[in-house]
Amino acid sequence: MKNHEVRKIMHVITRRGMTVNELVKEMSGSGVMGAGSLARAVDITEAMIKDKDCTVFLGQAGAMVPGGMREILIEMLESGWVDVFVTTGATLTHDLVEALGFSHYQGNADADDARLHREGWDRMYDSYMPNEVYPGIEDFLSPVLKGMVGREWTIREFLWEIGKNVKSRSLLKVCSEKKIPVFCPAISDSGIGLQVWGFIQKHKLMVSAFDDLKEILDIAWTAKKTGVIYIGGGVPKNYIQQAMQFSKQAAYAVQITTDRPEPGGSSGAPMREGISWGKLGYDAKHVDLFCDATIALPVMHAALKERIQ
Amino acid sequence: MKNHEVRKIMHVITRRGMTVNELVKEMSGSGVMGAGSLARAVDITEAMIKDKDCTVFLGQAGAMVPGGMREILIEMLESGWVDVFVTTGATLTHDLVEALGFSHYQGNADADDARLHREGWDRMYDSYMPNEVYPGIEDFLSPVLKGMVGREWTIREFLWEIGKNVKSRSLLKVCSEKKIPVFCPAISDSGIGLQVWGFIQKHKLMVSAFDDLKEILDIAWTAKKTGVIYIGGGVPKNYIQQAMQFSKQAAYAVQITTDRPEPGGSSGAPMREGISWGKLGYDAKHVDLFCDATIALPVMHAALKERIQ
Amino acid sequence: MKNHEVRKIMHVITRRGMTVNELVKEMSGSGVMGAGSLARAVDITEAMIKDKDCTVFLGQAGAMVPGGMREILIEMLESGWVDVFVTTGATLTHDLVEALGFSHYQGNADADDARLHREGWDRMYDSYMPNEVYPGIEDFLSPVLKGMVGREWTIREFLWEIGKNVKSRSLLKVCSEKKIPVFCPAISDSGIGLQVWGFIQKHKLMVSAFDDLKEILDIAWTAKKTGVIYIGGGVPKNYIQQAMQFSKQAAYAVQITTDRPEPGGSSGAPMREGISWGKLGYDAKHVDLFCDATIALPVMHAALKERIQ
Amino acid sequence: MKNHEVRKIMHVITRRGMTVNELVKEMSGSGVMGAGSLARAVDITEAMIKDKDCTVFLGQAGAMVPGGMREILIEMLESGWVDVFVTTGATLTHDLVEALGFSHYQGNADADDARLHREGWDRMYDSYMPNEVYPGIEDFLSPVLKGMVGREWTIREFLWEIGKNVKSRSLLKVCSEKKIPVFCPAISDSGIGLQVWGFIQKHKLMVSAFDDLKEILDIAWTAKKTGVIYIGGGVPKNYIQQAMQFSKQAAYAVQITTDRPEPGGSSGAPMREGISWGKLGYDAKHVDLFCDATIALPVMHAALKERIQ
Repeated sequence: MKNHEVRKIMHVITRRGMTVNELVKEMSGSGVMGAGSLARAVDITEAMIKDKDCTVFLGQAGAMVPGGMREILIEMLESGWVDVFVTTGATLTHDLVEALGFSHYQGNADADDARLHREGWDRMYDSYMPNEVYPGIEDFLSPVLKGMVGREWTIREFLWEIGKNVKSRSLLKVCSEKKIPVFCPAISDSGIGLQVWGFIQKHKLMVSAFDDLKEILDIAWTAKKTGVIYIGGGVPKNYIQQAMQFSKQAAYAVQITTDRPEPGGSSGAPMREGISWGKLGYDAKHVDLFCDATIALPVMHAALKERIQ
Repeated sequence: MKNHEVRKIMHVITRRGMTVNELVKEMSGSGVMGAGSLARAVDITEAMIKDKDCTVFLGQAGAMVPGGMREILIEMLESGWVDVFVTTGATLTHDLVEALGFSHYQGNADADDARLHREGWDRMYDSYMPNEVYPGIEDFLSPVLKGMVGREWTIREFLWEIGKNVKSRSLLKVCSEKKIPVFCPAISDSGIGLQVWGFIQKHKLMVSAFDDLKEILDIAWTAKKTGVIYIGGGVPKNYIQQAMQFSKQAAYAVQITTDRPEPGGSSGAPMREGISWGKLGYDAKHVDLFCDATIALPVMHAALKERIQ
Repeated sequence: MKNHEVRKIMHVITRRGMTVNELVKEMSGSGVMGAGSLARAVDITEAMIKDKDCTVFLGQAGAMVPGGMREILIEMLESGWVDVFVTTGATLTHDLVEALGFSHYQGNADADDARLHREGWDRMYDSYMPNEVYPGIEDFLSPVLKGMVGREWTIREFLWEIGKNVKSRSLLKVCSEKKIPVFCPAISDSGIGLQVWGFIQKHKLMVSAFDDLKEILDIAWTAKKTGVIYIGGGVPKNYIQQAMQFSKQAAYAVQITTDRPEPGGSSGAPMREGISWGKLGYDAKHVDLFCDATIALPVMHAALKERIQ
Repeated sequence: MKNHEVRKIMHVITRRGMTVNELVKEMSGSGVMGAGSLARAVDITEAMIKDKDCTVFLGQAGAMVPGGMREILIEMLESGWVDVFVTTGATLTHDLVEALGFSHYQGNADADDARLHREGWDRMYDSYMPNEVYPGIEDFLSPVLKGMVGREWTIREFLWEIGKNVKSRSLLKVCSEKKIPVFCPAISDSGIGLQVWGFIQKHKLMVSAFDDLKEILDIAWTAKKTGVIYIGGGVPKNYIQQAMQFSKQAAYAVQITTDRPEPGGSSGAPMREGISWGKLGYDAKHVDLFCDATIALPVMHAALKERIQ
């Protein structure tokens, strides 16, 4: 490997008033460690969004809504950057909470949790949610669930139906209005799920655990090319990864996580591991970005806005 | 805080031929950092198992079966230490794979993934699974799924039914035989799920996404006391945590994870955070053990075997 | 804690062409998890730089020069933002390497290390240094070291002397020219140290291991107020922390690290732990930012440039 | 790679009363993830200790003494398993503290640090040190330092001299009595260093920053083979690594750390990265164990005691 085959590291130079994308370009010129991975993540995401043949799957786990990332996620869906959204019940619940007019609050990771409990605050690291949201979710969902009785639903249909009834701008509403397939295999594992629990004590609701597989595999099969973006790991990442495995290998892959690979789980596994499974193409453009997503996402989103109309 | 209120750190002393429990006792005498947390994890797990009033919920995520922990998990269920098992589709799939006579293999985390793909190896860090398992799973599951047509199933019933048909000792078989409730909200997110996908192209299978909530919440409500053990985080941890939140606060909690709390997600959250949600009692005995579970579990299991008949 | 005592999380909104500082302000409005900590780190750093009574100590460990951060570090010193610089021998060596006209290169973390060795590349994750630098360092340092024979040196004086002889813009030269105290307790642990090893086979060089303590403690004692910034941990962090302990508690503290606190070491310890030692004031403004420094530093530096003339 | 070239994962089986080494053997049969790495770490350490041609270098950073590992470290030196010890000033200071009759105490990582400060406790995660140790260190060291005036010392000689004066069993005393070279490049960065600071206000102490390089490089050069064990990273790891780089490649390498490689620093770098530098042989037996050392060390030490007379 002679010198001219490797590029020099151009140290990052900052300028007063520089834009976010200009900073990411500097990181690209440096090209190594976190900065290099972040710049690469923006490049690959830009490529998969601009690639007209590419169906983009976004898998998201982790406290993004309590973490202040709600607006960014909604925009990624509204702007058409993301074609398929796979997420957790927690994200959809916190999104619904805000759509119903509640807020999340800036708290303290070292707070006295017993005192928070007495005062009605549910803590997620240094983010608080007032537990008065639960009656609010119930008041909203009860009539919606009642309207669902009598037919079978896939989880995706179930979620679009909820989104149809949400009045405020939100992840659920955007997916419903713009017909963006939203999958949440573990929807029962959430505040929304717990509301359904309350409902099904007295009513029958038929929502299928498996039928969404037909829809997501169909999308993956018919796509010309696929690109994946993972914020965190968990079920969303694996659900998309297995869709890739059983259809065609992804051509683009970006992963943002703080999980470690050594324990062997899917969440911390680097993207290249998927090549062995047939989830990722041998020549796919991929990157693993080791970074808290509440730092990476804003930087990436702002930079992408400068690059994409 | 005068001196006599805190205990001295008694440095760990090892002895040739000492048993695992003797080593854990030494760690207890040291009582700080990883050693202290590991010793406390054994103490609290021992306490919740020996407490006749306590219903023990085990939530497990991560590559425990590909990680060599299958026997330990099966024994924890067989021995009656665990009353409720919540896990991932991946764990149940890998368990089924071994039950069908296949094995996982010792590989290399730095392997050439394209070469592994060509040779038919699916990599999970340094653990390999031969992809010939997929036809094997299909051959086994097809008749079982056929027999499930025509009635509705909860996921727990679905899993016991599979377990009933598994001939070899396995997690699925043990849960089925000993009537241990096994919950897997995201069962569609797995190899088993993908087999179902193949099946439902031509058949109708009615498995409910939500109905298990009635069963797990019922168990949590009727339990006199509850104890939780989390190996990894993800859906299993949250599914149990929310059951605690909507029934009674857990009295014992042990978490083994390598996830970080700063990104705010549930997986890396310390147990005490659950106090704010009402998931854990103010005076609960709890510990967060920062350790790879394939190291912690064997040590804990061997030590517990010395303490529990 | 009534609602009006906590602030709502204002979700981060990105705008096309927004500056880095504008993005950080958005993160401040969100105020939680990584984004909140990053915004707070910028605020506290801004405060300590603008505080005319505050002496700012920067402790830096980790591969910042091979990581493309050299220009940013030089500017932080040149601009007068940092009053005292404590670093590792590795940083000063890599800085010298670039000052002598060599470069670091963009490589691959999954490279074949044996092949890299044969080809003369020293790897630091995905950053490469050509090992032809060693003769270069020797050619430069030999005459400088020769000129140091015959008197005693503190390490700080030793480093300023090297810096005096460096022709190109560099950390060493800036510290020397602007008389910025630069401390490196473990200078022997570095490429520069190894050059000295070669030199002292035949010559006597008297550099004191301890005498710098007088200088740094004197600076800490006479400072009206102190502020500390830690990039990584190790010796630089501890050397400054102990200076705080034995003089006055720091009033401002910012830590950027990916190290964990559970193993108990100083590197991963949160800033508040220093309060117990008297290293940090009870009311000090402090933050722990869990982030790769090659991502955090550029963002912070660009944002600070908008805030500070 | 046909099946017979890879080994099956034999799931870990625990037995009541099994010894620590028996458990490690089980982990070896599983051979993957943390368990596999831990087992391999024991195997490689055993090999380098039993190899009569091998000079074993132990580099140790992190809070091992406050973490209850003092006895194990002393025994590793006493038993002749370790030929060269490179450590931090913190370890030697905490060791001296205990040698002088003080103890470390079991505390709480969530303690109120301001209260601890008022009560005189210095916190290291959940380990406490009473700050009354400082006068104790001073009383002990003053006469020893006085006796050192008037000649030049290398740091290693300085440390053996202190060890000569320590009456109780300790790391310092063992190194001194058994003439085990102990290196601590950053000795000034410690409580011992701060005592020297107090001393040199009025006295002159000549301790060389660089001269130890001659001794450690000489040991590395004359060794037939070298093996390295790293507990944590920092200066100890790098000081040994560079000695390997400038003498002969190590034949055995074991690293126990929780640091991450992505930020690019030496501390989290995997052992194989050293192959590119010539620090590790192409065919060296090496392993990276991702584990808290207060868990790994006791397990490894107990297992090794069964294997080594």
